Amino acid sequence: MKANRIEKPQLALQNSELDALVLNPGPSLVYTTGMHFHLMERPVVVIFTKNQPPVIVLPELEEQKLVDLPYKIQGFPYGEKPDEWQKAFDDAIRYLDLKDKNIGMEPRSLRLLEYGFLQAATPGAKFMDAGETISSMRLVKDAEEVDAMRRAVGVAQKALQNTLPLIKIGMTEKEVAGELTLQLLRHGSEPEMGFSPIVSGGLNGANPHATPGTRELQVGDLLVIDWGAMVDGYISDLTRTFSIGAVEPEYRKIHQIVQEANSAGRAAGKPGDPCAHVDKAARNVIEKAGYGVYFTHRTGHGIGMEGHEEPYMRGDNMQILQPGMAYTVEPGIYLPGRNGVRIEDDMVITGAGCESLSDMPRELTVIG
Amino acid sequence: MKANRIEKPQLALQNSELDALVLNPGPSLVYTTGMHFHLMERPVVVIFTKNQPPVIVLPELEEQKLVDLPYKIQGFPYGEKPDEWQKAFDDAIRYLDLKDKNIGMEPRSLRLLEYGFLQAATPGAKFMDAGETISSMRLVKDAEEVDAMRRAVGVAQKALQNTLPLIKIGMTEKEVAGELTLQLLRHGSEPEMGFSPIVSGGLNGANPHATPGTRELQVGDLLVIDWGAMVDGYISDLTRTFSIGAVEPEYRKIHQIVQEANSAGRAAGKPGDPCAHVDKAARNVIEKAGYGVYFTHRTGHGIGMEGHEEPYMRGDNMQILQPGMAYTVEPGIYLPGRNGVRIEDDMVITGAGCESLSDMPRELTVIG
Repeated sequence: MKANRIEKPQLALQNSELDALVLNPGPSLVYTTGMHFHLMERPVVVIFTKNQPPVIVLPELEEQKLVDLPYKIQGFPYGEKPDEWQKAFDDAIRYLDLKDKNIGMEPRSLRLLEYGFLQAATPGAKFMDAGETISSMRLVKDAEEVDAMRRAVGVAQKALQNTLPLIKIGMTEKEVAGELTLQLLRHGSEPEMGFSPIVSGGLNGANPHATPGTRELQVGDLLVIDWGAMVDGYISDLTRTFSIGAVEPEYRKIHQIVQEANSAGRAAGKPGDPCAHVDKAARNVIEKAGYGVYFTHRTGHGIGMEGHEEPYMRGDNMQILQPGMAYTVEPGIYLPGRNGVRIEDDMVITGAGCESLSDMPRELTVIG
Repeated sequence: MKANRIEKPQLALQNSELDALVLNPGPSLVYTTGMHFHLMERPVVVIFTKNQPPVIVLPELEEQKLVDLPYKIQGFPYGEKPDEWQKAFDDAIRYLDLKDKNIGMEPRSLRLLEYGFLQAATPGAKFMDAGETISSMRLVKDAEEVDAMRRAVGVAQKALQNTLPLIKIGMTEKEVAGELTLQLLRHGSEPEMGFSPIVSGGLNGANPHATPGTRELQVGDLLVIDWGAMVDGYISDLTRTFSIGAVEPEYRKIHQIVQEANSAGRAAGKPGDPCAHVDKAARNVIEKAGYGVYFTHRTGHGIGMEGHEEPYMRGDNMQILQPGMAYTVEPGIYLPGRNGVRIEDDMVITGAGCESLSDMPRELTVIG
């Protein structure tokens, strides 16, 4: 049983046009209820309202999870026959009297599966995008959350430090990723780590979201490693780029530029400033060096229970930074068909500025 | 790059009232296109139609994935500003001329995020549940797929065999799960293994979907281990139940009953029979022994790229078994607040009957 913040959705509803908020399995459900369900073919939803305890529609075989909860929740369990599932949704909606009401949903999590049952249960209701209301609940991290992320960064850094001596020329990206995953688990990451390590060498490094493949490491490659751990439900998300033997001068140069951009981005965050400032600080360095067209993504994203969440460090994002917001700074230069560099750290906004949770060396290091 | 079955959606559309099929990141997308995307805040969809090559809406920074694909696909990339994403969807829908057409979707995968962009791009279209059309494509496994599942079973069995000697009284469920995960990776599982091991001892074993916690193993516990590997994108999903030291006679008895139910369920599958027969064969054994009320779930589910998929082994499922269908047989008895037993194997329907891919001993073994 994880910590819960069961009162947050009800508070969020008080000053809202919404009468209810619906969550399905995923980080927002874990955050508010402390309950973890796999997202599968059996629908699970928790419905929060302004004045009643939350209700949950769930399979009977998950009902044990409701025993000994430290808060009140009304269960609407259903059996194994799919043609009986709708009734549980109907009963829950009737119990909460949500006919013709405004029901808020989380578009990046709720599937048409759950939505279909909800809609059939109350065709008169107005279903609304409550993505911002829900992400606002998780936007500012408390001390416990920052502590979990700090530990997740520690696990990730130790795991990579123990992997680096094992990386040899001729190993495949997959082999490096497998060894790093082993080290992440050995140093205390939870098995569900949010994302698997990205290990991409040579021309694969020019693809920011590459999947580790069977390409073997060669002298002259840059090697991008983007990895993280999960501790108590919170992630870390870091990137370092290495040199396999000696690399050509332009690759050393773009690494130096990205390192300076990372440094500028890490220095830029402070309460009261918009997210855009962080993006601009990093991007200016790369643009001035003439590589702006090869920095193809935003400078960073929020982190917490998910790998990508609000706030996003984009040039057009005027959202104001507040103490407790956590995000990545991860500028990169990607030369298509050749090589790529990215350097990523995890930041948290403090009372006066910001702090980098990660401190592994960022200089271009030769390995292999 | 994985194998692709890019022609399958187009074939499925030929005899259908649907004009198009939409897939978002997940197993069905990997199966048809061979392309893997993380399900994140940036929407990705592939749209298949009857007569044109498929189109894909995706972030610019993922465009590298389209290079060197062994088939034709039309990309509609979008940049980092969310207010420009709708245009990419609009352009894709216009390119395919899908105004006012019937568009099929996968409710258990498609989120309101993607659905919102699609709906806004073509308000006149009729969006329809194509869950069955899509799951039918993946329902019968070919030799390559069965081979991958066979190897995933091999990896899982070796991993548990190497974990068992390390399990000691006083270890927590989490510690056992962590060690088993290490062994799964060491023996060749992909890092994203479909699900994390369930390790539940004593009264936690009475919850079929428990999450490994901090409870320590005690003499007298039954220990349920539900685990699997992923190899080449295909999973295994097995369960064995162990005895920590000596357990009380009733626990030995329910283990014996579940073992017989598993055996009956494994013997029952054959081409031409409904799935319900497999459920009944296993359930009859438990009901006759007087524990029917404690077998609270269906006997099994399909397996392949996902932990749970069609066909489902339920008493009310008259779907006909065909050679190449793969599924679990996993009867259980759960005594609330006390202990639980489950024994699970992975089956595939053959020309004449069925074959169990897994063969680890099922007898109650004392460990710890």
